[in-house]
Amino acid sequence: MKFEMNKIIVNANNKINLESYDTKYVGEFDKDSAKKALKKNIKELKEIQEIFYADDSHSLLIILQASDAAGKDGAIRHVMGGINPQGCRVHSFKAPSKNELEHDFIWRHYKALPERGMIEIFNRSHYENVLVTKVHPEWVLGENIPFINSVADIDENFWADRYKRINDFEYHIHKSGTRILKFFLNISKEEQKNRFLARLDTPKKQWKFSTGDLKERKYWKEYRKAFEDMINNTSTEYAPWHIIPADNKWFSRIAIGEIIHKTMKDLNLKYPKPENQELLNDARKQLMDE
Amino acid sequence: MKFEMNKIIVNANNKINLESYDTKYVGEFDKDSAKKALKKNIKELKEIQEIFYADDSHSLLIILQASDAAGKDGAIRHVMGGINPQGCRVHSFKAPSKNELEHDFIWRHYKALPERGMIEIFNRSHYENVLVTKVHPEWVLGENIPFINSVADIDENFWADRYKRINDFEYHIHKSGTRILKFFLNISKEEQKNRFLARLDTPKKQWKFSTGDLKERKYWKEYRKAFEDMINNTSTEYAPWHIIPADNKWFSRIAIGEIIHKTMKDLNLKYPKPENQELLNDARKQLMDE
Repeated sequence: MKFEMNKIIVNANNKINLESYDTKYVGEFDKDSAKKALKKNIKELKEIQEIFYADDSHSLLIILQASDAAGKDGAIRHVMGGINPQGCRVHSFKAPSKNELEHDFIWRHYKALPERGMIEIFNRSHYENVLVTKVHPEWVLGENIPFINSVADIDENFWADRYKRINDFEYHIHKSGTRILKFFLNISKEEQKNRFLARLDTPKKQWKFSTGDLKERKYWKEYRKAFEDMINNTSTEYAPWHIIPADNKWFSRIAIGEIIHKTMKDLNLKYPKPENQELLNDARKQLMDE
Repeated sequence: MKFEMNKIIVNANNKINLESYDTKYVGEFDKDSAKKALKKNIKELKEIQEIFYADDSHSLLIILQASDAAGKDGAIRHVMGGINPQGCRVHSFKAPSKNELEHDFIWRHYKALPERGMIEIFNRSHYENVLVTKVHPEWVLGENIPFINSVADIDENFWADRYKRINDFEYHIHKSGTRILKFFLNISKEEQKNRFLARLDTPKKQWKFSTGDLKERKYWKEYRKAFEDMINNTSTEYAPWHIIPADNKWFSRIAIGEIIHKTMKDLNLKYPKPENQELLNDARKQLMDE
C-alpha cells in the first residue's frame, strides 16, 4: 500500500488524540495517481466481490461515520460504484422513527445486518448513539429507557456502558462470521467550511444543504471529543477504527477502497466445490440424452 | 431505440402466444454494437439515477422473472453494475421461509418495496406465486390458506383471483408513485440446455448448478403455459410485461438497460430547489463571518 496503515488504524487499547491525526495526509499519492489506483481498485473489488458472494462464508459490514460533508456519500458512490448491487446494500440511517425509539438503540441496525456473502454499508450507524446523543444528551430521554429519568443520569458510566454494549454486539457478530470495517472520515473544520460554501454556490448541490448542518457545526469541539471517545473506547482487535484523512476526497476514497480489498483478500475466499462430481456427470448425461 | 418495442412490450388486454415471440430477436444490434451501446447506457443510468435520488418523488420497482439460466443475475450485474449502491437495492427471493408462509403471498415482497428515490430490483418476485406454484399446485397447500383445503380447490378461479390481487397490489403502489417495470427473460429450451452444460463444464460456474434445475426443466411446457398465463393476465396499462429475447445475453442486457433508462427519462426528473434562497444567503454569510 502506498500509505502507512499505522497512520490510519487505531489498535485496541491504544488511546489516541484525534487532533494529532493529519486530515491532509495522502501517503505517496497525488491526485492523479490516486485516481488511477482507484480505477484499478474498483475492478479488483468487483472481481473479489463475486468470489465473496459465491464463497458464502463471511459477510462484510462497512461502517462510515463522519462530520457533515466529509465525503461519506461520495466514498460509497466512487469506491463501491462498480460492485454488483446484488451483493451489496447500503443503509443510510437518519434520525430514528417513533417506532424505532420503542426499541433498544441497536435494534434497527441489527435488522439491517448482512447475510453471508453480502456486503452491507452503514452510512451512519449504531455509533450515532454515542455521537449525536453525546453532544445532545437530552435526546437520550427520547429513547424512554426506564432507568434514565433525567439528563443527570447520563453520566460517564452511562457512556462507558454504551461502548461496552456496542463492543459486545460487534464481538457477537464477528464471531458469527461478519467482518467489520469501521471508517471515521476525518475532515478539518476549515475544509468543512469550504465544502458547505461549495454546496451553497452550486445550484445542483444546493438541495444537499440543510441549515441544520450549520447548527451542528457550532458543536464542532463537542463532536470531536465524542469521535475521539468513540474511537478510544470501541477500537477492538476484531473491529478497529480507521481514521481516514478526508480533506482530499481522492485520498480518502483510495484508502477506503484498498483497505476493503485487502480485508476481503485476507479471507482466502474460493468458489465452492460442487458437492458431488457424480451428480454433475449424471446431469450432463441426462442433458445430452434428451 | 434500435429494436422494436412492439416486439417486446405486451399491452394490456392484448392476449399473446408466447411461442410466437422470437427468443433470438436482436433488433438492429450485433454483439459488438450491443456492447458499445451498453457501455453508454451504463453511464446514462448512473447519471439519471443521481437525479432520480435527488428528485425523490418516484420509486422504481424492476421485476425480473425467467426460467433458470435465462440471465437474470447477469443482467443485474451488467446493466446495474455502474449504479450507486446507495440508490439501488436487489432482493433475491428464494423459497419462502416457514415464517413468511404464515403471511399472505405478497407480504414479504411488500416489505421490500423501494422508498422514493430508490430503485429496487426483485430477482424473482411475488409472481412466483403464479408460476412455480401453478406448476406444482400442491405447494399452495403449504401456505395454509383457510379456504383452500385440497388441490381440488386450486382451480381456474383460484388463479384468476390471484392475478386480480397482484394487479390490485401493483395498481395501489403505482398510484403512490412507484413505477413498475416487469421483464420476462425469454430463453429457448435449447439455449437453456447449452447454458446448463456450460455451467457443468466450467469449474468456476459449477457451484451455480443445482440438480433441482434439471428437475424443473422437465416441466418446461407447464412453465411456458404459466408464464404465458401470467403475462396475459397481469399486463396492465400501469405495469405491462416486457418479453425480453434472452438467447443472446448481450441483447437482453441492452434491451433492459434502454427500457429502464427511457422510463426514468420520461419522469422529467429534476434536482429539488432549495426551499428558501434567503436561508442560503444567511448561511453563506454566517460561514464567511466565522
